[in-house]
Amino acid sequence: MKRFGKFISQNPLIFLLLAIPLTLAAQVLHWSSIAVFILAAIGIIPLASYIGEATEDLASYTDPRLGALLNATLGNAAELIITVTAVQAGLLELVKASITGSIIGNLLLVLGFAFVVGGVKHGTQTFNKVNAGRNAILLVLAVVTLIIPSVFSQSIVGAAADSKVEALSIGVAIIMIALYGLGLFDASRSKESVLSHTVPKDELPDWTLAQAIIVLALATIGVVYMSESLVRVAEDVITGLGISEFFLGIILVPIIGNVAEHLVAVQMALKNKMDLSVEIAVSSSLQIALFVAPLLVFISLMLGHPMQLIFNKFELLALLAAVVISALVSSDGESTWLEGAGLLAIYLILGLAFFLLP
Amino acid sequence: MKRFGKFISQNPLIFLLLAIPLTLAAQVLHWSSIAVFILAAIGIIPLASYIGEATEDLASYTDPRLGALLNATLGNAAELIITVTAVQAGLLELVKASITGSIIGNLLLVLGFAFVVGGVKHGTQTFNKVNAGRNAILLVLAVVTLIIPSVFSQSIVGAAADSKVEALSIGVAIIMIALYGLGLFDASRSKESVLSHTVPKDELPDWTLAQAIIVLALATIGVVYMSESLVRVAEDVITGLGISEFFLGIILVPIIGNVAEHLVAVQMALKNKMDLSVEIAVSSSLQIALFVAPLLVFISLMLGHPMQLIFNKFELLALLAAVVISALVSSDGESTWLEGAGLLAIYLILGLAFFLLP
Amino acid sequence: MKRFGKFISQNPLIFLLLAIPLTLAAQVLHWSSIAVFILAAIGIIPLASYIGEATEDLASYTDPRLGALLNATLGNAAELIITVTAVQAGLLELVKASITGSIIGNLLLVLGFAFVVGGVKHGTQTFNKVNAGRNAILLVLAVVTLIIPSVFSQSIVGAAADSKVEALSIGVAIIMIALYGLGLFDASRSKESVLSHTVPKDELPDWTLAQAIIVLALATIGVVYMSESLVRVAEDVITGLGISEFFLGIILVPIIGNVAEHLVAVQMALKNKMDLSVEIAVSSSLQIALFVAPLLVFISLMLGHPMQLIFNKFELLALLAAVVISALVSSDGESTWLEGAGLLAIYLILGLAFFLLP
Repeated sequence: MKRFGKFISQNPLIFLLLAIPLTLAAQVLHWSSIAVFILAAIGIIPLASYIGEATEDLASYTDPRLGALLNATLGNAAELIITVTAVQAGLLELVKASITGSIIGNLLLVLGFAFVVGGVKHGTQTFNKVNAGRNAILLVLAVVTLIIPSVFSQSIVGAAADSKVEALSIGVAIIMIALYGLGLFDASRSKESVLSHTVPKDELPDWTLAQAIIVLALATIGVVYMSESLVRVAEDVITGLGISEFFLGIILVPIIGNVAEHLVAVQMALKNKMDLSVEIAVSSSLQIALFVAPLLVFISLMLGHPMQLIFNKFELLALLAAVVISALVSSDGESTWLEGAGLLAIYLILGLAFFLLP
Repeated sequence: MKRFGKFISQNPLIFLLLAIPLTLAAQVLHWSSIAVFILAAIGIIPLASYIGEATEDLASYTDPRLGALLNATLGNAAELIITVTAVQAGLLELVKASITGSIIGNLLLVLGFAFVVGGVKHGTQTFNKVNAGRNAILLVLAVVTLIIPSVFSQSIVGAAADSKVEALSIGVAIIMIALYGLGLFDASRSKESVLSHTVPKDELPDWTLAQAIIVLALATIGVVYMSESLVRVAEDVITGLGISEFFLGIILVPIIGNVAEHLVAVQMALKNKMDLSVEIAVSSSLQIALFVAPLLVFISLMLGHPMQLIFNKFELLALLAAVVISALVSSDGESTWLEGAGLLAIYLILGLAFFLLP
Repeated sequence: MKRFGKFISQNPLIFLLLAIPLTLAAQVLHWSSIAVFILAAIGIIPLASYIGEATEDLASYTDPRLGALLNATLGNAAELIITVTAVQAGLLELVKASITGSIIGNLLLVLGFAFVVGGVKHGTQTFNKVNAGRNAILLVLAVVTLIIPSVFSQSIVGAAADSKVEALSIGVAIIMIALYGLGLFDASRSKESVLSHTVPKDELPDWTLAQAIIVLALATIGVVYMSESLVRVAEDVITGLGISEFFLGIILVPIIGNVAEHLVAVQMALKNKMDLSVEIAVSSSLQIALFVAPLLVFISLMLGHPMQLIFNKFELLALLAAVVISALVSSDGESTWLEGAGLLAIYLILGLAFFLLP
C-alpha cells in the first residue's frame, strides 16, 4: 500500500489516463461536444507526458547525436499531432494561434509560475547567465523570422499577392528549418545546447529500450486518436461556449499539449534547479518557432490546406512582448518571485485581451 | 545676512512661492489666461517639492513598511492632483498625454541632463549594474502592460467595442495595481527596492513629525488650489498659443509637476551619486506607469469621466523608445555625457514631432 | 614573379580596376545598360577600397583630432558619392533604400559572414564586451532617431502636412549631425571611440603623405565618374531586370559601395581579431545613420530634390530587426558561427521579402 502511494505521488498524472476510456464512452454515448472536448483534452495530458519521457529514455540509449535529434523532433510530438489534425480539419487560424500560444505560454506562463514558486521557496534564484544570454539571442532570432514575413505580407497586394505570400512563407520556412538543422548539428557536438536539453538521469523512469519504444508507440497512437476527437468537436465548442477559434488556439490548445512539460519546469524551480527550469521553457519555445512552425508549412501544403507563416497583429505583439520580456528577465541570470509575477501579469493581460477580441 | 544667504542657496525654490499670491491677484484682477497659467505653473513647483520633502520626513518617522507605502503613494501627489483636476474638467487627452510625458520626461530629459551634467564634471560615471538591470526589467514590464491594451483596442470594433475596451482597461488597471502592491510588499522587506527609494538622511530637512504633517497638509491644499487655477485656464491657453491639448499634456504638465524632483536627480549626478540619480528618474517613471495610471482609471470612473488606458500611436512610440533606450543606456552600469546627449537628442526629436502634430 | 604573386595576393581587388576602361568602352560602344551597370558597379569596388586606404594613411599623418574627422567623413565617401549622384538624378527612393541597405548589410551580412567564417576557423570568439555595449547603445539611439520622424510623418495629414514633414526632417537632421559632431569631439579625445576606428598600423599600405593625397584624389574622381555611369543606366536596369528601384537600392547599391570594407571585416574575423571586425561593421552603420543620412537631407535640399528622412514600413522593420539582433548578439562579447548563421538567415529572409515586394 505504501509502495502504491509512492508510485502515485511520483506519477500524479496517471489518474488522468481515465479520461481516455471516458472520451470513448462520451463519443459512443453521444455526450455533449463540450464534454468530449474536455475529456479528450485531459486525456492528452498524460499521453504527451509519456511521449516526452519515452523520447528521453530512448535518446539516452542512442548515440548522443541521434539522441539530440530525437529529443528535438519528438519533444513536441503531442503538439505537432494536435496541430496536424487541426490542419487536416482546415482550422488554420487555430493552428497559427496555437503556435503563438505555445511560445507565449512557455515564456510567460511557465517561466512566470516557475519564478514565483521557486522564488517564494528559495528567494532570489540564479542560473547560468551565459547560457541564458545565448538562448535569448536564438529566441529573438526565431521570433524575428516569424515577424518579418507577417509584416511584409500585409503590404504585398495586387494580382500576384497570394502566390507571393505563399512563396515568401515557403522561403522563410526553408531558411528556418535550415537554421534549426545547423542548430541541431551544433547541439550534437556540445552537450550544453538549448536545442538538446536533457532531463538529468535521476529524473528518468527506468524503462528498457524495448519498453521505451512500446510506450512511445502506444502514447503516440493515443495522442493521435485523442487529437482527432478533440478537433472534431472544436467547432461545436467554439459555437457552444461563444469563444473564438483564435482564443481556443492561443490559450487552450498550448496548455493541453504542454501541461506535463510545464509541471517539470515548475518542479525544477521548486528544487532550485533554475538552469533546467529556464532551459525547458526556452528550448520548447525555440522548437516551436524554428521547427514545428516551418514543418507545419510543409505538412499543410501536402495536406492541401496551405498554411502561411503569416500571423496577425495581436499574435505578433504577444510574441514580441513575450520574447523581449523573457529575454530581459533571464539576461541577468537571476529570478525573483516579483519578476515571475510580472510575467504572469503580462500573460493575464494578453489572455484578457484575446478573450475580449471578437 | 550670511545665514539668510545660506538658507536661500539651500532653498532656491522658495522665491517661486511668490507665484502663489500673484496667481490669486491674477485671477481677482482678471489678467490674461496665459498669465494665470504661467503663474499657477510656477507656484506648483515649490509646493510639489514641499510635498516630496514632507513625505520623506514623515516616512522616516514611521515604521519602514508604512514609510515605503507613504513614499510610494505620496511621491507623485502633485502630479496626481493636477491630473485628477484635469479629469474633473474632462481633459482626458491632456491627462493621458501627461502620463506619457511624465515617463519620457523622467527617462530622457531628467536622465539625459543628469548624465550630461555629471559626465562633464566627473567623466564616465558608474552605478550599480544589478539594480539598474532590475529596474529596467520592471520598467519594460510596466510599459508593455500599457502598450498591450492600446494595440488591442485599435482592433476591437463593432457594437460592443466601447464596453469591451472599458472592460479591458479596467482589467489591466486591476492587474497593474495588484503588481504594484506586490512590488510594495517586496519593497517593504528589502531596503533596496526601486519602489521605495529614499533620499539619504543628510539630504533631509530637520522637520519634526508635527511640522512634516502640517507642511504636507498645507502644500497639498496649495497644489489642489493651484491645479484648479491651472486647469481652468488650460483650454484658453491652448487656443491662445495655438498649441494642442496633447502638446500641453505631454511636455508642459509633466515638467511642472516634477521640476523639484528633476533638480534633485541632477544635483545627485553633480555629486557623482549616480545610483540615486538613476533611481529617482526610474522609480518616478515606475510609479507613474504602475500606480498613477491605473489609479486614474478608477478615479476617472468615479468622477463620471471614464478614462481608458488607451494611448495613441505617438505616445506608444515615445514610451517604447524612452524605455528601451534608457534600459539599454543604464544596463551597463555606466554613464557618459555622450549617452546623456543621446537621450536629450531623442527627447528633442520627440518634442519637435509632438509640437508639429496637429 | 614570386613578388608579383605576393602583390596580387595582398591586393586581390586590383584586377577589378580593369572594369573601369571596360565601362568606358561599354558606353562608347553602346553596350546594353545592364552591361554598363555591372561593369560600373565592379569598377567602384577597388576605387572605394583605395579611398578608404588613402584616408586612413592620410589620417595617420595628421593630428589625431583631424585624423578622426577625416576617417569619419571620408570613410563612407564612395557611398556618399553614389547617393549624391542618385539624388541629382531624382532617384530618392533608391537613395533612402540604400541608406537602410547599408545599415542592415553591415549589421547582418558583414557581421554574419565574419561570425561564420571566424567561428568555423576559431570556434567561439570573444571581443570587448564594454565597447560592444557602448556601440550598441549608439546604434539603437541612431536608429530610433530615424524611426521617430517616419512614424510621426505617417499621421501628419492635412494642408500643411508636406511642410511639416519637411520641417521635422530638417530638424531631425540637424539634431543628428549635432549628436554626430559631439561624438566626433568625444572620439578626438579618446582613442577607443567607435566613430574613429582605425585599422592597425601593420594593415596599412606604405604610402607617403603626397601619394595618399594623389590616390585619394584619383580614386574620388574615379568613383564620381563610375557613379554617374551607374546611376545613368539605373532606371534601364530596373525596367530590364524587372526589379524595383527599392530592391536595387536596398540590396545592390550598399554591397557595391562597401565590398572592400566588408572584406576587411571578414579578414579580421579570420585572423581572430573580432574587436576590429565588429567595430568596422558597427562604425560603418553608425556613420551612415548619424552622418550620411542627415547630410543627404541637406545636400538634397541644395540640389533641388528635397529628400525627407522618412522611411517606409519595411525599411523601418529591417532597420529595427538588424539593430536589435546585432546589439543582442554582440552584447555578450562572444560570437559563434551559429549566431552568424542566424544573422545571415535574417538577411536572407529580408532580401527575399524585399525581392517579392512590388
